[in-house]
Amino acid sequence: MKNLNPFFTKKNKISLNNIYSVLNHKSDKKLDKVFVNDIKTLDASNNNDLTFFNSTKYLDKLKKTKSKYILINNRHLKLIPKNKNPIVVKNVLLSVAKLTLLFYPTSLNDNFDNELKLLKKKNKYKNIVFGHNVYLGKNVKIGNNCSIGHNTIIESNVKIGKNCTIGSNVIIKKTFIGDNVNILDGAVVGKKGFGFFPLNNSNYRYPHIGTVIIGNNVEIGCNNTIDRGSLSNTIIGDNTYLDNQVHIAHNVTIGKNCIIAGQVGFAGSSTIGNNVMIGGQAGISGHLIIGNNVQIGGGSGVIKNIPDNSKVMGYPAKDIRNFLKEK
Amino acid sequence: MKNLNPFFTKKNKISLNNIYSVLNHKSDKKLDKVFVNDIKTLDASNNNDLTFFNSTKYLDKLKKTKSKYILINNRHLKLIPKNKNPIVVKNVLLSVAKLTLLFYPTSLNDNFDNELKLLKKKNKYKNIVFGHNVYLGKNVKIGNNCSIGHNTIIESNVKIGKNCTIGSNVIIKKTFIGDNVNILDGAVVGKKGFGFFPLNNSNYRYPHIGTVIIGNNVEIGCNNTIDRGSLSNTIIGDNTYLDNQVHIAHNVTIGKNCIIAGQVGFAGSSTIGNNVMIGGQAGISGHLIIGNNVQIGGGSGVIKNIPDNSKVMGYPAKDIRNFLKEK
Amino acid sequence: MKNLNPFFTKKNKISLNNIYSVLNHKSDKKLDKVFVNDIKTLDASNNNDLTFFNSTKYLDKLKKTKSKYILINNRHLKLIPKNKNPIVVKNVLLSVAKLTLLFYPTSLNDNFDNELKLLKKKNKYKNIVFGHNVYLGKNVKIGNNCSIGHNTIIESNVKIGKNCTIGSNVIIKKTFIGDNVNILDGAVVGKKGFGFFPLNNSNYRYPHIGTVIIGNNVEIGCNNTIDRGSLSNTIIGDNTYLDNQVHIAHNVTIGKNCIIAGQVGFAGSSTIGNNVMIGGQAGISGHLIIGNNVQIGGGSGVIKNIPDNSKVMGYPAKDIRNFLKEK
Repeated sequence: MKNLNPFFTKKNKISLNNIYSVLNHKSDKKLDKVFVNDIKTLDASNNNDLTFFNSTKYLDKLKKTKSKYILINNRHLKLIPKNKNPIVVKNVLLSVAKLTLLFYPTSLNDNFDNELKLLKKKNKYKNIVFGHNVYLGKNVKIGNNCSIGHNTIIESNVKIGKNCTIGSNVIIKKTFIGDNVNILDGAVVGKKGFGFFPLNNSNYRYPHIGTVIIGNNVEIGCNNTIDRGSLSNTIIGDNTYLDNQVHIAHNVTIGKNCIIAGQVGFAGSSTIGNNVMIGGQAGISGHLIIGNNVQIGGGSGVIKNIPDNSKVMGYPAKDIRNFLKEK
Repeated sequence: MKNLNPFFTKKNKISLNNIYSVLNHKSDKKLDKVFVNDIKTLDASNNNDLTFFNSTKYLDKLKKTKSKYILINNRHLKLIPKNKNPIVVKNVLLSVAKLTLLFYPTSLNDNFDNELKLLKKKNKYKNIVFGHNVYLGKNVKIGNNCSIGHNTIIESNVKIGKNCTIGSNVIIKKTFIGDNVNILDGAVVGKKGFGFFPLNNSNYRYPHIGTVIIGNNVEIGCNNTIDRGSLSNTIIGDNTYLDNQVHIAHNVTIGKNCIIAGQVGFAGSSTIGNNVMIGGQAGISGHLIIGNNVQIGGGSGVIKNIPDNSKVMGYPAKDIRNFLKEK
Repeated sequence: MKNLNPFFTKKNKISLNNIYSVLNHKSDKKLDKVFVNDIKTLDASNNNDLTFFNSTKYLDKLKKTKSKYILINNRHLKLIPKNKNPIVVKNVLLSVAKLTLLFYPTSLNDNFDNELKLLKKKNKYKNIVFGHNVYLGKNVKIGNNCSIGHNTIIESNVKIGKNCTIGSNVIIKKTFIGDNVNILDGAVVGKKGFGFFPLNNSNYRYPHIGTVIIGNNVEIGCNNTIDRGSLSNTIIGDNTYLDNQVHIAHNVTIGKNCIIAGQVGFAGSSTIGNNVMIGGQAGISGHLIIGNNVQIGGGSGVIKNIPDNSKVMGYPAKDIRNFLKEK
C-alpha cells in the first residue's frame, strides 16, 4: 500500500549519512549522495528502502527481502544474506522508531485532525444520509448509499466504499474501508498502536505510519478499538464480523469470513487465517500465526501458533479434546 | 411485550402461502386465505403466530407453545405435538430470519434514527435537566426529575421512567427504562445483536425486532454495550447494577438484585436468576440458565447451567471448593 | 490531598452529636460542641477527623492513624489502640457512606456538570488547540501546548498540565492531570466508582468524594474507564502507559513506569508498584498489593498479593515457572 498512504508525508532525499547521523554512527561524506527511499518491513521493502531484522521468527522474510539496507543487531549479523548492507545497531526497534521519524517528520503527532469541519446541510456528498454534528476532514471519500451517524468524526483522507453504515459517536482515521461495511456506535478505528520503548521517566513513543484496511462486507462492533499499523497495516478481511468491545492492536491481520465474539483481544502483529471463529473474551498474544478454519473457545488464551483446522480452548489454549478431558 | 413494541412496523395479512413462497415451498392456492398473525418465540406465541423449534433444550417450551405453525427441521419432526402444523425446513434459524423480514420488512435496517432532532432550549419536557447537544427522536417519553447528559442520543419511541440519570455520550434505542435508573457515560443500549448466518463472502444478517427492557433502580456502567433481543427481549431486572465495560448480548435475561462487576460478558440468550453476583471479567456462554443466589468468581468462564445457591469459579467454572482445592 | 479537592463542598461544624444522630446512636447534649473536621481514611486522617476500620488487612494503618474517632464493629473493637474514641456500629461501610453524606451533602449527585459551556472560538486559553464542540466547566485549568479533541467534555475544576493531548469524545471530571499526558479517544476519567451497599429492591449508593490523580508522561488508552476514589484517590504514576479498554476501579493506585496492556481490569483499592508490566486481559482483584518490578502474564487472574520482582501467570496467578511446568 506504500504509494497509497495519503496520511503521512514522507521526506525525500534522505541520505545514508542522514541515517548514520540519527544513529550516531560515524559519518562518511561519500554517503551524502547515497539516497534511501523509505523505511519498510522486510517483505514490503524494495531495493532502495531501509528495513530491519529483530527476531529469528522472521528469518524467512530476511532471506527474501529486496531491501539493501538492513538494521540489525550484532547477535543476528551472521544471519544476513551476503549481498546486503547491514547497519548494526544496539536497539533495532528504537532505531526504527527514530528513523521512521526521519522519513516522516510529523508522524509522532497523534493529535486529532485539525482540518475537520462540521458537515453542512448542503454538501457535496450524494445519496448519503448524514446524522447531526458530523465532522469530516479534507478529501474524505464516501461511496453511494452510505449512512453516517450523529457526532461521528471521519478524519482527512479516509476512504469509505459504498453501502456502508457508520454508527453514531464513531471515530475513524487513517483507514480505508470497503463496500457494505457496518461500523457500529462508539468504535474507534485507526488510532496509533500501543507501541513505544519503555524508558524510565519518559517512554519513547513510536511513530505509527501504518493504516487500517477493512475489506468488504465487514462488521465492526460497538466500542471496538482497532489500532492502525506501525510500519505495516492492520487488516480485516472480507466478510469478517467483530462483536462489541473487541480490541485489535497494531499490525494484526485477520482473514476472511472470520467470526470474532465480544470482548476478544488481539495483541500486536498476529496473523489470523480465514474462516476462524473466536469465542467471547478470548485473547490472542502478539506475533502469532493462527491458521485457517481454526476454532478458539471463549475465554481462551492463545500463546503459540495454531495450525489449520484446529479446535483449541483453555489457557494456554490447547486441543479442545485434551482440554475437556483434563477438566 | 408484543403489542407494546413501537419500534418496528409489522405487516398484516401475511398468508401461509406468502410464508411458503419465502421458504421456496410448493404453494397452495387454498393457503392464500390462511393468515398468520406474527412470528414469535415458543413461549410468547399465540395460536395464530408462527414459531420455531431448533434445539432440544427448548423441548418443554415446544410442548407448551400455543402456536399452530412451527418451523422445524426433519430431525426434530418426531418431537412435535400431534395437533400442530409443522413447517419442515432445512435451516430453521435462516428461515426465521427470512420470515422475520417478511413480517417486519424494515427490520434489517439498523441505521441511526434519522428522525432525531437537536433538543432546543425551549422544549416540552418538564423538570428535566438536559446537557448540551442532546438529540431526541420522535415520541420519546422521559419521566420527571431526570437528567440527560451532553452529546447523548435517545432514539424514537424510547421510554424513560422518572428520577433517571442518563450520562453523557450515551446512545439509547429500542429500549424501555424504569424509574431511578442510572445509565453512565458512553453506554450503548439497544443496538442489534451479533446474530447472523455465516455464509462465505457475505453473511446473512438477522433482523433484530426485540427490545431492551430495564427495570427500576438499575445502574448501567460506563461504556457498557447492551444489545436488544432478536425475537424476544434483553431484560435487566430491578435493582441490578452493572459496572463499567460490561457486554450483554441479545436475548439475555438478568434477574433482580444482581451485581455484575467490570468487563463481564454475556453471550446470547442466557437467563440469570435473582441475587446473582458475578466477579470482574467473568464470561457467561450462550443459552445457559444460572440459578438464583449464585456467586461466580472473577475471571470465571461459565459454560454450563449453574443451580441455585452455588458458588463457582474457574474455567470452566466449577464449585469453588473444588477449584481452590485443585489449585 | 484534602485541601486541594475543589470538587466537593464540605459542611463545617459537624458535631459528634450530628454523627450520633445519623447513626441512630443515643445523643448527648455535651457532644453538641465537640466538632469533627472531616471523614478520611486511616492514613489520611488527622487528630480531629473521623475514620473507620473494617478489615484486619489494615491493622498496621489502624495502629498509626492520627484520628481520634474511629468507626468500628464490635468484633474488631479489641484491636483499637487505647487512646482512641471508638464509635461502634453494626455495618462500618454503610455508616461511612451515611456520614460521608453528612459532611458532603451534595456528594451523591453524580449528574453531569450543568455548568459546562460550549467553548467559543474566542476564549481565554492560550496556545491550546481545541476541536469542535468542546465543553468546559467552570475554573478548568489547561496548560500550554495542549490539544483538546472534538466533542470532549471537561468538567468544572479539572486541572490539566502542559503539553497534554486529549482525544475526541473524552469525558474528564474530578481529575488532576500532570504534564505530557495523552488521554485517547472515548476515555471516561473520574466517574464515581462502583461502590454501594447491596440492599434488596434498592441498593444504597455510596458517595464518592475522591479524585483521579494522573502523573506526568502518562498515556490513557481509548475507551478506558478510570473511576475516581471513594474517600481516597485513584492514582496513576508518572510514565505509566495504559492500552485500550482498560478498566480501573475506585481507589486503585498504580506506580511509575508501568505498562498495562489492553482490556486489563483492576477491582477497587489495589496498590500496584513501580515498573510493573501486565499483559492483555489480566485481572487484578480488589484490596491487593502488587510489588515493584512485577510481571503479570496476559489473561492472568491475580487474587493475592504479589511480592517484588515476581513473574506470575495463570488463574489464580502463580509463579510463571510453576504455571508453565504444570501446563
